[in-house]
Amino acid sequence: MLVVPRTLSGFKDRLPKEAMAKEKLLNKVSKVFQSFGFVPIETPHLEYADILIKQGSDEIQKELYAFKDHGGRDVALRFDQTVPLARFISQYHNEVDLPFKRYVIGNVFRGERAQRGRYREFTQCDFDFIGSNSIVCDAEIVEVIYASMESLGIEEFTIWLNHREILNGICKYFGIVEKSNIETTLRIIDKLDKIGKDGVCIELKKELNMTEKKIQGLLEATNIKQIGASDDFFEEIAPMKQWNEELKKGIEELEKMYEILSNLEMDRDTYRINFSIARGLGYYTGIVYETTLNRLKSLGSVCSGGRYDDLTRTFSKEKLSGVGASIGIDRLLAGLEELGLLSNKSTNARILISCMHEAYFSYARALAESFRRSNVNTEVYPEATKLKKQFSYAHSKGHEFVVVIGEDEYISKTITIKNMTSGMQLDRLSFLKILEIIKEG
Amino acid sequence: MLVVPRTLSGFKDRLPKEAMAKEKLLNKVSKVFQSFGFVPIETPHLEYADILIKQGSDEIQKELYAFKDHGGRDVALRFDQTVPLARFISQYHNEVDLPFKRYVIGNVFRGERAQRGRYREFTQCDFDFIGSNSIVCDAEIVEVIYASMESLGIEEFTIWLNHREILNGICKYFGIVEKSNIETTLRIIDKLDKIGKDGVCIELKKELNMTEKKIQGLLEATNIKQIGASDDFFEEIAPMKQWNEELKKGIEELEKMYEILSNLEMDRDTYRINFSIARGLGYYTGIVYETTLNRLKSLGSVCSGGRYDDLTRTFSKEKLSGVGASIGIDRLLAGLEELGLLSNKSTNARILISCMHEAYFSYARALAESFRRSNVNTEVYPEATKLKKQFSYAHSKGHEFVVVIGEDEYISKTITIKNMTSGMQLDRLSFLKILEIIKEG
Repeated sequence: MLVVPRTLSGFKDRLPKEAMAKEKLLNKVSKVFQSFGFVPIETPHLEYADILIKQGSDEIQKELYAFKDHGGRDVALRFDQTVPLARFISQYHNEVDLPFKRYVIGNVFRGERAQRGRYREFTQCDFDFIGSNSIVCDAEIVEVIYASMESLGIEEFTIWLNHREILNGICKYFGIVEKSNIETTLRIIDKLDKIGKDGVCIELKKELNMTEKKIQGLLEATNIKQIGASDDFFEEIAPMKQWNEELKKGIEELEKMYEILSNLEMDRDTYRINFSIARGLGYYTGIVYETTLNRLKSLGSVCSGGRYDDLTRTFSKEKLSGVGASIGIDRLLAGLEELGLLSNKSTNARILISCMHEAYFSYARALAESFRRSNVNTEVYPEATKLKKQFSYAHSKGHEFVVVIGEDEYISKTITIKNMTSGMQLDRLSFLKILEIIKEG
Repeated sequence: MLVVPRTLSGFKDRLPKEAMAKEKLLNKVSKVFQSFGFVPIETPHLEYADILIKQGSDEIQKELYAFKDHGGRDVALRFDQTVPLARFISQYHNEVDLPFKRYVIGNVFRGERAQRGRYREFTQCDFDFIGSNSIVCDAEIVEVIYASMESLGIEEFTIWLNHREILNGICKYFGIVEKSNIETTLRIIDKLDKIGKDGVCIELKKELNMTEKKIQGLLEATNIKQIGASDDFFEEIAPMKQWNEELKKGIEELEKMYEILSNLEMDRDTYRINFSIARGLGYYTGIVYETTLNRLKSLGSVCSGGRYDDLTRTFSKEKLSGVGASIGIDRLLAGLEELGLLSNKSTNARILISCMHEAYFSYARALAESFRRSNVNTEVYPEATKLKKQFSYAHSKGHEFVVVIGEDEYISKTITIKNMTSGMQLDRLSFLKILEIIKEG
């Protein structure tokens, strides 16, 4: 009886073209992380269930893949990379230096209801700065996001910045002081794009019994955002520092961060303050980040994060704060595809070598070895089948050149090459001449 | 109540030094795979249990992490990368071109009894050539193993080659013809290193009722191996081709492969025929491979594989043969560590920039940005703490240089740098001068 080959419901396979594109993105961002001194760690995909259960939200508990292992232990697949980081730091605090800058690229699992474009296993790409309260770390996160986007060839993006104290301060100013009420308020405001201004008003009235006037004030305040790289922005919002201590603190920290970033070559138009950015409500305590692609805002944030207090509270009494962000690499991949920024190739080999007879393979392999030693990725078609079939293979995978070895080439130890884009063919040239042509493009 | 931070029993964390080393190895080998035209695919860590259960051996069934997901589906974590490949090829046969060359780097899970140096989650690093019977593919596997070892800086290694038909032929010659008896024989011979020649004799007598003379002949034949790159080897074993068709076929295919490899720059001493290499008994049908480090033979094979028939038999009636191998990256990592070939660094940043006062951070960050734009990975210590603490951080992580920014440097926009290896310090030089020094080493 044959088994029907099928992918587990809610999960995803990637064909070579997409898998290659993803691998390239991941390589690029990990190089960026490393260039700032972030280092990788590795933790298992499986953890004791109690390690994960304590820290997750209720929502996440429901989505946890939990089961008993062979030894009857309660185990679960990780649902994020932050809880394993907290466990790791608590466990190895004697072996890692603080501040600890770690990045991690790995898959996490959430048994969410299947939705278009959302899968139950996805890749997280996190970088965090643990154990320092310095605003220099918060500034570095902006730099890393900028450098990551740049490395991926994305030119038009915006890093949106806010501070949780600014949101607390605005809420307080309009009479919302209890933590749970602040969270309710932010959750409702977060729906602005979905339910519109009127919808937000109705919900705020209903849930918090706010007056129309306060709601208007609240919406106006959270609607403040920096337009371009105007230096006047901090002047414009300066009066709000008088509203309360929270707003003063939040705005001053952003000012300090802007000062640290001021001498960089980074395009100052790309990072902007936006008082509506809230992010993971209970979690963040300081500056928060979101990143959108200017030409594809509907995609949502492709890199988000913020500063948090007390990372290791479940495991240790020692308080460790941190700041970090996560690149949503699967979402980004979908976005780049939509913008036509992904390569159409299904191979990283530039040359395909075709043999017209089996006897030529030993020459073909030596030739391929020489190309590879000259850093030109080269594949040899392993059968001496019809040239038409071999050319169609190269065409479909995206090789730039096909080298054909017939009797003449074999005897004279020369190379005949066809440029698959221009269609131009050059006959019986030397290896060095061909190498020159290929290296030129 | 605090949760005790602990790693799941049988699983492993990696601190930055080790995680960095592993990532580097994986980057290097994936570049090699790509240079030969292998392409990556991605499949989920979780599969429907029936996909995995049919193909695995009984041993593996016991070790399978299987459970019910939120929708009540029977699911399991993959135990290798070959079954998912078979499922993938069967499912997407209309979308991939044959021959299909895929590589994959990912983790697999086996609930084995915990042993020293063996973990229940480990990384597999497979490359396979599917859908071609050409011996050119088998030859390429040798080249890929060679190039991988070379890329990892391993100079002394041996790729051991054999052919399953040679083993079948030797067994047949000594009167063992039934498949199950051949498998028993090979399993016993495989224990030679463990139980010695006498132990092997006793077991062969007991299990197969063989005569002393036949056992001696069998052991002598399977003990044949190529010593160095001698061209006489095929002449020496030529008479065995007369023993039976199986031996003839096996030896001739190896001869053909050697012919294909003959013009390469590869050191011919590194690949050798060894009639005792068996590998995964029921699985392989043609040429098989093992790779050992000459200076650490006790480590066992770090890259093994072979040719197999009918990869997709569980899923499809179409017969697809293939040849491939798998680098045991965790084992290799342990071996390189033992041989002292791993870096001691816990960072990829070459420079650490230290500020003596908070006011200098904006200059420090701009300097770091300039270094990074010149491809020199540079980290800024995020706090203006005591220099001693910052130097000790650099020392422990392995930065090559520390740049110190004090008042003089800040005002004159110069750089004072200390070489952490030589101890040499250079005061107040320009960025370009420093860049020159750093690029020199």
